[in-house]
Amino acid sequence: MTRLEFWCELASPYTYLAAMRIDDLASAAGVEVAWRPFSLGPIFAAVGWSTSPFNVYPDKGRYLWRDLAREAEALGLPLQRPSQFPRNTVAAARVALLGVERGWGPRFIRAALAANFAEDRELAAPEVIDELLAAIGLDGPAVRAEAEGPEHRPRLRAATEQASAHGIFGAPTFLVEQEMFWGNDRLERAIAWARATR
Amino acid sequence: MTRLEFWCELASPYTYLAAMRIDDLASAAGVEVAWRPFSLGPIFAAVGWSTSPFNVYPDKGRYLWRDLAREAEALGLPLQRPSQFPRNTVAAARVALLGVERGWGPRFIRAALAANFAEDRELAAPEVIDELLAAIGLDGPAVRAEAEGPEHRPRLRAATEQASAHGIFGAPTFLVEQEMFWGNDRLERAIAWARATR
Repeated sequence: MTRLEFWCELASPYTYLAAMRIDDLASAAGVEVAWRPFSLGPIFAAVGWSTSPFNVYPDKGRYLWRDLAREAEALGLPLQRPSQFPRNTVAAARVALLGVERGWGPRFIRAALAANFAEDRELAAPEVIDELLAAIGLDGPAVRAEAEGPEHRPRLRAATEQASAHGIFGAPTFLVEQEMFWGNDRLERAIAWARATR
Repeated sequence: MTRLEFWCELASPYTYLAAMRIDDLASAAGVEVAWRPFSLGPIFAAVGWSTSPFNVYPDKGRYLWRDLAREAEALGLPLQRPSQFPRNTVAAARVALLGVERGWGPRFIRAALAANFAEDRELAAPEVIDELLAAIGLDGPAVRAEAEGPEHRPRLRAATEQASAHGIFGAPTFLVEQEMFWGNDRLERAIAWARATR
């Protein structure tokens, strides 16, 4: 089975759109998805941005929310503009990375993205993360303690460094071997590429 | 007939992809296209960029040329990476604006974009502009003189100021009344919107 890496950032609105539909599209095409949570913060900081480019460039930001609303509607996905943007997703991303190892990563990532972009919940808050974990049958405080422990905590930085080494500059990004596709708009093409290189 | 404004920049690679297919898509949908040449230079300068964002952000730039090659291939359009990027398109854009008034604008714009992105020709050079004009039966030096004359020369700045007032931050941009769509990827959606609001 061809493997498609799905580089996802929990603060990224277009990652939300991609995460909600990637599994159906990929399984219909016989493509395996490797979920790769990472952080855009250090990557943005390296080009001089202290926040999302959608905040750095206000015209682009205004357009983003309108475009996102149209795209979410076309895909039949609920959307609520977050009252905080971008949210600090570092703690949730560490949990997501642990989840990917344990098999519940995609479920948690989808729930976290929906909390951020469909329910306007404060994903930076430990109690929100705990609720999302409880909903998939896990003990939030224990999972968070493990994700923040000495073994797992460094993995988010390592993932982000790997993303940077691949030349990833935004999210979502899809990788099929060294072929890169950026943005929810390229999900179908990335899956077709993965299927064709099988 | 609903009117869709096509804001086009002759230095923009994704404008090339959109320009080559907009007329067929629009006429099939019963949508009228108003071609609106403008300059991204002053808009980029206003956010602090002295060149294309694809040069300002090298990872994004590397990705652009790969993505563009894949998209052009999927659309069956020839593509040659320009040896100069971005090219200075101010003189050609003034000619394009005159052409829009006279009815030969779209033909010239398509030829100019193809010269830049399919033939790697120096669109900043008057002799290249003259050849493109000659190919559509026009007297290059006379047209350029008129485009640079006191009546027409200020129109490019005015168009760019209008673009900026609309909140346009990139190209191609499609406007249907106040509804904005950015990027070649949104051409189909913009046309569908124009058709639905008829």
